[in-house]
Amino acid sequence: MSQQGKPDRQERRRFLTIYGRKAVLEALQDEDMDCRILHMANSNRGGGIIRDIQRAAQERGLDCREHSREELARISRNGRQDQGVALDVYCAAMGELDAYLRDMSDAPQRILALDGVTNPQNMGMVIRSAAAAGIQGLIYADRGNPALGPLVIKASAGTVFRAPLLRCQTVMDGARQLSDAGFTLYRLQADGRRSLFDGQDFAQRALFVLGGESDGISEALRGLPGENLSIPMRNGVESLNVAVSGALVAYIAATVE
Amino acid sequence: MSQQGKPDRQERRRFLTIYGRKAVLEALQDEDMDCRILHMANSNRGGGIIRDIQRAAQERGLDCREHSREELARISRNGRQDQGVALDVYCAAMGELDAYLRDMSDAPQRILALDGVTNPQNMGMVIRSAAAAGIQGLIYADRGNPALGPLVIKASAGTVFRAPLLRCQTVMDGARQLSDAGFTLYRLQADGRRSLFDGQDFAQRALFVLGGESDGISEALRGLPGENLSIPMRNGVESLNVAVSGALVAYIAATVE
Repeated sequence: MSQQGKPDRQERRRFLTIYGRKAVLEALQDEDMDCRILHMANSNRGGGIIRDIQRAAQERGLDCREHSREELARISRNGRQDQGVALDVYCAAMGELDAYLRDMSDAPQRILALDGVTNPQNMGMVIRSAAAAGIQGLIYADRGNPALGPLVIKASAGTVFRAPLLRCQTVMDGARQLSDAGFTLYRLQADGRRSLFDGQDFAQRALFVLGGESDGISEALRGLPGENLSIPMRNGVESLNVAVSGALVAYIAATVE
Repeated sequence: MSQQGKPDRQERRRFLTIYGRKAVLEALQDEDMDCRILHMANSNRGGGIIRDIQRAAQERGLDCREHSREELARISRNGRQDQGVALDVYCAAMGELDAYLRDMSDAPQRILALDGVTNPQNMGMVIRSAAAAGIQGLIYADRGNPALGPLVIKASAGTVFRAPLLRCQTVMDGARQLSDAGFTLYRLQADGRRSLFDGQDFAQRALFVLGGESDGISEALRGLPGENLSIPMRNGVESLNVAVSGALVAYIAATVE
């Protein structure tokens, strides 16, 4: 918090706003979720699930705010599907890449980035695997990665709220920042000479980049200094699902010193 | 082939029958697919995609057979969705577990089994990862694993036709056969003391078993002699998607001697 009592940018970026009556009620009922502010459209009729939501919020002693339908759509960023309800959830492990770089320790740092991955299900699955593997961060770009909406949340099996997501503008911006901070870039590419599984050490500060389902890693990113890594494939298999590649990279990055 | 010129049981079990006009046409146009017999319902009207299918089959010099609608439904095993077209595809890497055990070499053998995994998408994704990883086999039980239908084929990105699937009656039967043949059973369980990633050797002959999405590994299978392995998870993540776990196990099993 800044001195004025208002959250500063870094704190603001730790909030995820979820929406939809069922999703919001489930979040309010989940003790592991750090719910902060409930937003309701003043057009909502009482009773039913709306009453359940209000009760659950009261039990938590939550800040509850009423808005016009239009204002609520601005908060949820999805007026079509918010059903007049939105909830700000605090995600302690999420934050700005800037702040992460400022505060990081001398311990090994392993970061993963998905360049041009647009499928929310794949994104969500990689979030889950990255959180489970225990790598230090997963780049989450405002532009170029799918929005942190219901599809991503569901595919992440709810782990998005505790995953170390490092927010930045674009994946390219993030990669450049990490490169400038001394990170070695490991690009996962079919033609990489070195195998992900060769058992050799990675750099103490390592950024692993996976490309999207159709276009692979962007030309701009391929232009940054770095090394190419491959995942060996047999039986004529030409590619792996990006959620699978992401999990392999996250676990190998987390377990190989 | 047996002496009578008819395929024996082992050969028969190497055939996958796919169905549906688009799927069959795509298979016929894919040079990597070993298509053998085209089955058509005599009720099909000529022209359009039916003509394209017939031409593609002729170009391959395929055996083309006509059947009654009912007989075709028996061949495709899915009269509702076969659209009057089925195709027998030969999968050289697929076969009976019996025959695999009879013929296996002294080299390290790494087999994976999914116990109670009923989601076709997860099954298909694991087939793709297992084929890519290069393990010696993936158990495919007639009962207990989803049918090798369009959903599995699609999720496998077509790799099902080249994957080393070892067919048996049930996963439990297969596990018992492998156990009797000297395979060490490694069960992936949350409470496993040893980590999949500890870098230690596995037995020369190793069967890795993953449980289903809801019920985990069956009690019967937990009763077989074996060792429990865990995939370490951080940040309070309680489980991984089974397609992800399957890929991690397949690649670690294939790369750790």
